[in-house]
Amino acid sequence: MPTGNLTILGLGAMGSAIAARLRDTGYTTTVWNRTAARTLPHTAAGSRAAATVPDAADAGDIVITVLLDHASVREHLEPAAPHLRGKVVVNLTTTTPGEARDTAAWAAAHGIAYLDGAIMAVPSMIGTPEARLLYSGDENAYAIAEPALAVLGAAEFTGTDAGVASLKDMALLAAMDLMLLGQLQAVAMMRTVGVPAADTAGEVEAWLTAMLPHGKAVAAIVDGGAYDTGGQSVDFDRRGLASIITASREQGVSAALLEPHERLLAELSAAGHGGDDWPRIIDRLTIPR
Amino acid sequence: MPTGNLTILGLGAMGSAIAARLRDTGYTTTVWNRTAARTLPHTAAGSRAAATVPDAADAGDIVITVLLDHASVREHLEPAAPHLRGKVVVNLTTTTPGEARDTAAWAAAHGIAYLDGAIMAVPSMIGTPEARLLYSGDENAYAIAEPALAVLGAAEFTGTDAGVASLKDMALLAAMDLMLLGQLQAVAMMRTVGVPAADTAGEVEAWLTAMLPHGKAVAAIVDGGAYDTGGQSVDFDRRGLASIITASREQGVSAALLEPHERLLAELSAAGHGGDDWPRIIDRLTIPR
Repeated sequence: MPTGNLTILGLGAMGSAIAARLRDTGYTTTVWNRTAARTLPHTAAGSRAAATVPDAADAGDIVITVLLDHASVREHLEPAAPHLRGKVVVNLTTTTPGEARDTAAWAAAHGIAYLDGAIMAVPSMIGTPEARLLYSGDENAYAIAEPALAVLGAAEFTGTDAGVASLKDMALLAAMDLMLLGQLQAVAMMRTVGVPAADTAGEVEAWLTAMLPHGKAVAAIVDGGAYDTGGQSVDFDRRGLASIITASREQGVSAALLEPHERLLAELSAAGHGGDDWPRIIDRLTIPR
Repeated sequence: MPTGNLTILGLGAMGSAIAARLRDTGYTTTVWNRTAARTLPHTAAGSRAAATVPDAADAGDIVITVLLDHASVREHLEPAAPHLRGKVVVNLTTTTPGEARDTAAWAAAHGIAYLDGAIMAVPSMIGTPEARLLYSGDENAYAIAEPALAVLGAAEFTGTDAGVASLKDMALLAAMDLMLLGQLQAVAMMRTVGVPAADTAGEVEAWLTAMLPHGKAVAAIVDGGAYDTGGQSVDFDRRGLASIITASREQGVSAALLEPHERLLAELSAAGHGGDDWPRIIDRLTIPR
């Protein structure tokens, strides 16, 4: 039987799932929501509702925030700062790394042990091992909160820089975003010859499953840093990409999603790197501009 | 023991692998290459070398071209047209769908049964089931060539439009291209906090493996065509993407690869589609512009 008083601020779909899971695993839970009516199903199920954020803060040893955005986190936590002093705040609101660091600095100035979290799951996955939650910030706070956090899903501490959990979340989402757009580009191209999206999606899934491990070879080239393995070069990649772009346009499909890649390769080639391994384009993503 | 006389035009790495595989499986092979010296290892292994393309064409019932590009295909085949009449030409040179259709029209005008192929493999994979070869064009030509083509790898006839094999190849390559760029974007973001590319690549591989099946749900929305399932909307996707872009820029990493997505979503939203399912952006890829 776990012991501890947990407060959950914010009862949207994700906050509600988290409150329910903590309650169901035996924690004493206090909930607060801007619109108080949302607390009713939780009080009916055994949680206590607090009327104000300071009241809610007083009731918990660990305060979990699952609010709309960074601005709402600051709006609601700032007036409660004296009530949060000496406690652990775990902010699971989706924010950018910079916002996470900003809140961490604010918390440190008020004697609050701060953890910033990122949830890689939809609410229905909370409480299953499929839910993955990343945390960064105060290591001691993580040690204290870890037993409670572990019941939400697979928990991972990613470092003392409070921005890293969010950064890792955003990096993985960036990869997923471009992968899904790639699928959509393929679907758009094949629709021009009457192939249903479902058929193309199945083909793409099989193809990308086979190609995914290739990312490790790309990473090895990036980590090596020399870009001279003699593998696929910038200029080779440019020619291949030009064919893909031409094929797309011939079919009346925009190549807009592929154009930044074309531009980065052209820049590299113009800078004398046409013979380098193509992953050198990572340099063009990180130069000051 | 297979019977048939096959001619291979072009002995680069891929053409050589194809000639070797056909020879090793018992076909009588005649090879030709612009630089004749490249024929030597093949004649030493039992192939016949032809001095000219017309000679090479005369020697084969099926003529396979694996040349540099579309221009070289036309340059070498046109003078040999009378020698190719009534034969099957299988063009495995990488071309665009439009170029494939152009060569198909030329072949039809000269009484040549034409198949356009796309090779989804590197030369070392030729002859294994991992090599996948797509063909489109003349169905009768495919029926004739299929036994020989089957020894090269998994063969698939994709339709009588000669451009479809190339189109499908390019569509799958477009999907892979964006997936690999997504991995690189994640690597670039995580390198700013000292995470080696190899570590990020491993994380991305596991994450995308889990997320790949989501493409089928996206496809179902596209095939449905109503974009009103109430799932993730254009405006929801915009907010999520804005966070990813901000996170990237906060770390000093360009969001250039993600900007077209941002632009397409903004266009959709401006056109009154902010509440529609996000896969409606496929419309923006296919409108005339």
